[in-house]
Amino acid sequence: MTELARDIVERLKVAAGPAGWSEDPDEIAPHLIEWRARWHGKTSLLLKPDATDQVAHIAQICNETRTPLVPQGGNTGLVGGQIPASGEVLLSLVRMNRIRRVSPEENLIIAEAGVVLATAQSAASEARRLLPLSLAAEGSCTIGGNISTNAGGVHVLRYGMMRDLVLGLEVVLANGNVLNLMKGLRKDNTGYDLKQLFVGAEGTLGVITAAMLKLVPQPSSYVTAIASLRNVAAALPILNDLQGATGGQVSAFELIQRRALDLVLREIPGTANPLAGEFEWALLIEVSNSAVLDATEATELVLSQAIERAAIGDAVFAKTLRERESLWRLRETIPEAQRKQGVSISNDISVPLARLAEFIDLAETEVHKLLPQAFCITFGHAGDGNLHFAILAPDHEPILTNLRSEIENAVQECVWRLDGSVSAEHGIGIAKREALRRQKSVQEIETMAALKRALDPNNILNPGKLLPAGLT
Amino acid sequence: MTELARDIVERLKVAAGPAGWSEDPDEIAPHLIEWRARWHGKTSLLLKPDATDQVAHIAQICNETRTPLVPQGGNTGLVGGQIPASGEVLLSLVRMNRIRRVSPEENLIIAEAGVVLATAQSAASEARRLLPLSLAAEGSCTIGGNISTNAGGVHVLRYGMMRDLVLGLEVVLANGNVLNLMKGLRKDNTGYDLKQLFVGAEGTLGVITAAMLKLVPQPSSYVTAIASLRNVAAALPILNDLQGATGGQVSAFELIQRRALDLVLREIPGTANPLAGEFEWALLIEVSNSAVLDATEATELVLSQAIERAAIGDAVFAKTLRERESLWRLRETIPEAQRKQGVSISNDISVPLARLAEFIDLAETEVHKLLPQAFCITFGHAGDGNLHFAILAPDHEPILTNLRSEIENAVQECVWRLDGSVSAEHGIGIAKREALRRQKSVQEIETMAALKRALDPNNILNPGKLLPAGLT
Repeated sequence: MTELARDIVERLKVAAGPAGWSEDPDEIAPHLIEWRARWHGKTSLLLKPDATDQVAHIAQICNETRTPLVPQGGNTGLVGGQIPASGEVLLSLVRMNRIRRVSPEENLIIAEAGVVLATAQSAASEARRLLPLSLAAEGSCTIGGNISTNAGGVHVLRYGMMRDLVLGLEVVLANGNVLNLMKGLRKDNTGYDLKQLFVGAEGTLGVITAAMLKLVPQPSSYVTAIASLRNVAAALPILNDLQGATGGQVSAFELIQRRALDLVLREIPGTANPLAGEFEWALLIEVSNSAVLDATEATELVLSQAIERAAIGDAVFAKTLRERESLWRLRETIPEAQRKQGVSISNDISVPLARLAEFIDLAETEVHKLLPQAFCITFGHAGDGNLHFAILAPDHEPILTNLRSEIENAVQECVWRLDGSVSAEHGIGIAKREALRRQKSVQEIETMAALKRALDPNNILNPGKLLPAGLT
Repeated sequence: MTELARDIVERLKVAAGPAGWSEDPDEIAPHLIEWRARWHGKTSLLLKPDATDQVAHIAQICNETRTPLVPQGGNTGLVGGQIPASGEVLLSLVRMNRIRRVSPEENLIIAEAGVVLATAQSAASEARRLLPLSLAAEGSCTIGGNISTNAGGVHVLRYGMMRDLVLGLEVVLANGNVLNLMKGLRKDNTGYDLKQLFVGAEGTLGVITAAMLKLVPQPSSYVTAIASLRNVAAALPILNDLQGATGGQVSAFELIQRRALDLVLREIPGTANPLAGEFEWALLIEVSNSAVLDATEATELVLSQAIERAAIGDAVFAKTLRERESLWRLRETIPEAQRKQGVSISNDISVPLARLAEFIDLAETEVHKLLPQAFCITFGHAGDGNLHFAILAPDHEPILTNLRSEIENAVQECVWRLDGSVSAEHGIGIAKREALRRQKSVQEIETMAALKRALDPNNILNPGKLLPAGLT
């Protein structure tokens, strides 16, 4: 892309307000690289407006002058969607960080796009409600980014993805018009539900400036247990029994391969295996209690029935908050233990619920064909069909690095053979835009491109992201 | 619209297959009028294909020849969306009535568009699962229509609208391409979530031919209670306390005005008022029990606290299934008791949760300005902000009939003043397409029209519905 014309730069600076822009390379630099440093962006202009009408004015100028614009929230995305790869103007929403309203009575919060997720969680908590989106980056990711990437996390099984929490949106369109979709009605069948368009669109159809999100009752405590599992196929019937027994109160159902647990036990100080006997797979299970309804007995009943039919070998319940933390530590430190092994290839995939075991077998087989010394570990949100499948080769790192794209392709082929998704949570961004051609049918990609052309005919909003090249 | 060209008719008949069409006015007639007889359609050709590729071929011919097409399911819609008002070809999906798969393990069902809702509910029930969509027309409405109108019903508070149950869709586009969105993954962040476009689009963006829907655990029983309420504003805190105490297991929270109850007691044989004392408002409350967790005590606790603070006067719990049925009869027969009063004006509206009381006061005041003798009754799904507000005038029917559109407009103005929706559940169809201009901003309507043009550039799919005239 060519240099930005000086007059356009000046107009954009005026639109963003006196404190709303920077041309200082030092200030811009941290916005151009994400934490894994896989994509390096470049830009000469950072805009950081703090009001919706400023964003609208910026979009209008960009549209009129055909100037590409990349929206960015907390810069925690893993697929490069937030990076100005070709010198685009960078539009940071972090100064739009007001919480406009919290209503515990109506169970909703209105937050601007730049509000950090943890800040919104705290505001909900102060109102004695739960904002159920929770993920590792919550201390720095923003509400706008969470919506633009349809964020997932650890509570999806119970409360859904970010899409399910969005009651309303305020969106600046490519032409600078503002769509105010903030009525937040629980029921409203008057025409197309436009807010759905912008959830997960990675900033390619509009710039989200604020959102109304659902809040839910705070659970008063949790029943937490770990259990050794006969095999992966035994997991789903246990989940269904638990959901039936508790009326759908299961809030976590995490699958952990023994190999992953062993890495944790070796690498993370203070961890210990709580389970007796031999096993290749474990489940970490959590069920929500309300102040009045305690699901402990229901959970015990289901797990003891699973033990009777040998679906489970051993099960251990957390009896204190501290024991709960110890059990969660076994799951949450897997990525850290994995990083300590050096180079690895991570995959965030999903498959139909009934095909989890099949995927793991197939993917391990295909990876071993390419690299017999590979060491595969699987863990993740089994209740959502979402697995993290990682490939390590501690003593053969150079080979693993050389084979990276071959191995990634092989894993993706396994996903497609089982009708799964090569991006369950993380999105497409730059990283997977060409993989989209295999993930989706021609009809789907053409329909996506038609939507993009309808909403952003000049292709100014986050060009080069999400859609395969040559379509817009 | 002009007569259908004979050669187009012949091509469409071939596309629909030997048993897939009718030109017999007697067979066509029941498809042209809905049960309230407010819209009368006309057409010379009914197509009734039984396979997706036939629907695709039909759309392709219609698109090529610019022949308008009106999709129809069970013909139970209340706003005329399913009626060929101008001689369009009528496309009935009722022969696409196969249940392709039920998986209790994966908690999903795949049904073709023409499957009757009650049939799908039974198939889920046989698999010991609940398909939670439930509404008055369930014996004749179809899955395709339920999705195209984003159906609501009595379980929305607990399980959401139809949109929330759609895991996958198969859709024929205007150009005859088939979008297969049937992976049904619980998590899939690979691009725009195209299935959202077609939910609630009333057949204007594509023809739904099949769907994958979520199933949930069957509740084993219910806690059902009726309570007299101090005033409408007292309802929401009780709902929030109940949701907190039960972990969100409230499945019904229905507001009933005393006037509506009195109509039922007078008109419906075998009904009796279970509540002691004076009251103007009542609540019908239902909470789900699982096999292991009984919410009775939690519900009793919350209601007794409400009695202590005088939010509730009296509360009565159903102790048997028969008593449960008696309580529900008081709510479910309100429309029947209303019909026995003769002419009435019904409104299906929603407002923000905190504004229910304000709406009722305002709407009654405005209606009485136009017709002092009007008798208003309010009932509905208070937990969703969705009220049925009906106006009767038993001794002044001709005046009520004369004032119908003035009164409807006045009620709609009240809704808009409170940021509500003039169609909470029923959709837009023909009935409310001009009201849409007040319901939505110019930006919203323009965006809707842009989507319509992008997906149906020749405006062949259900033209004249949902969007205001002159936009497509």
